[in-house]
Amino acid sequence: MLSNIRIVLVQTFHPGNIGAAARAMKTMGLTNLVLVNPRCFPDEEATRLAAGATDVLEKALVVTSLEDAVQDCVQVVGASARLRSLPLPHFDEPDDMAEQVISNATNAPVALVFGRERSGLTNDEIRCCTHQVSIPANPEYGILNLSQAVQILAYETHRAWRKRDASDFSYQRPLEATPPSREQFVHFQDHLGRLMQQSGFLTQPHARTEEQLQALFSRAQPSRKELSLLRGLLSAFEAHLPK
Amino acid sequence: MLSNIRIVLVQTFHPGNIGAAARAMKTMGLTNLVLVNPRCFPDEEATRLAAGATDVLEKALVVTSLEDAVQDCVQVVGASARLRSLPLPHFDEPDDMAEQVISNATNAPVALVFGRERSGLTNDEIRCCTHQVSIPANPEYGILNLSQAVQILAYETHRAWRKRDASDFSYQRPLEATPPSREQFVHFQDHLGRLMQQSGFLTQPHARTEEQLQALFSRAQPSRKELSLLRGLLSAFEAHLPK
Repeated sequence: MLSNIRIVLVQTFHPGNIGAAARAMKTMGLTNLVLVNPRCFPDEEATRLAAGATDVLEKALVVTSLEDAVQDCVQVVGASARLRSLPLPHFDEPDDMAEQVISNATNAPVALVFGRERSGLTNDEIRCCTHQVSIPANPEYGILNLSQAVQILAYETHRAWRKRDASDFSYQRPLEATPPSREQFVHFQDHLGRLMQQSGFLTQPHARTEEQLQALFSRAQPSRKELSLLRGLLSAFEAHLPK
Repeated sequence: MLSNIRIVLVQTFHPGNIGAAARAMKTMGLTNLVLVNPRCFPDEEATRLAAGATDVLEKALVVTSLEDAVQDCVQVVGASARLRSLPLPHFDEPDDMAEQVISNATNAPVALVFGRERSGLTNDEIRCCTHQVSIPANPEYGILNLSQAVQILAYETHRAWRKRDASDFSYQRPLEATPPSREQFVHFQDHLGRLMQQSGFLTQPHARTEEQLQALFSRAQPSRKELSLLRGLLSAFEAHLPK
């Protein structure tokens, strides 16, 4: 699926933006980059900002027209900060766009097209698109840097892919610690309850306070190890209490 | 809500990343930037890459420790590409994090903390955090540029904000549910640490055990009221301990 997604940059002015876009793509599992008439490419600045994604730059295709870049695609989404008056279907939300793109990209190529830093896409280029998408932003300052826009739409595409059953994505997770048994937990609660009385914290049985603190410890979901530490701490306090 | 969200960058190496981060913030309606020991700031490169967001740079606070940057915050989310073994609550998905952050930011400051370009956050800095979040990415190349990570998390925050009712309506919360400030929480940790020693539970300073129990209490997310009960219990124990 992700391998069917093509990122197309039209007449990019700053080679640094091309490099940063390549890096953004690779972090989100995208590797197909097409450059339409880039002003300056290849370029040291692109290579530098690509960091570990220089392979994406090396694989990039350079073409002379947007039509050449997208003609085999089943969907072409133009990303634009400014909506045009052409009545193309428009996605208000990048996540809606991404779900559709991932779905279409199961079997055929789909392109996400980004325009020039200052002027976006021309009307002729919009006509190569099947959809438009904007990234909702601050109405007082809504123009994202080009490579940032690529990062966000690549991120949304990856997110839509993760959310599908078919993806084999697995989260990096810290090792989960063993939980205690119910019995071990009840022993802890009893111990705590006893000490609340013995210490003078509860001068008389006060169910509400006991409940509240017990609920806190329950919610903390202590591991077996942590419960053991807590029991040790309670015992250390207990040693100083009157019988 | 958005005005209660603070972006904290710790010891950023490249001033360009600071500028690009400021721009990323402003496009998503965020304006509170705090820099902890930036290597190079102010700097021409930061100003250049900030584009129309130089006002965010001008307003930025520069501090010398992460603790100073977040002590009044009710939630501190550490953004990290690499998970640590400290058992902090972890968000697999930035959108889940953003919903919680926006909810907490209704009434009090919340911080999103980003570490150094190469080495992220230190263990001491992770200890200032209440949560961790990672941006799910390509397992073969998952390290996003710092300002790109800021852009994505700012974008998700803005998205969570958009998905709430458009009105300024904010839910009334009962007093017990208010979270404590960072400062109140640190007082509790200090009190607990002192009593671990005084009670004889720790015969010598043992950072690992202290850390583990402190992480547990952090993870429990005690309300202001619960923290107050815990302090009361600790005081009751303390009354029986030798000086």
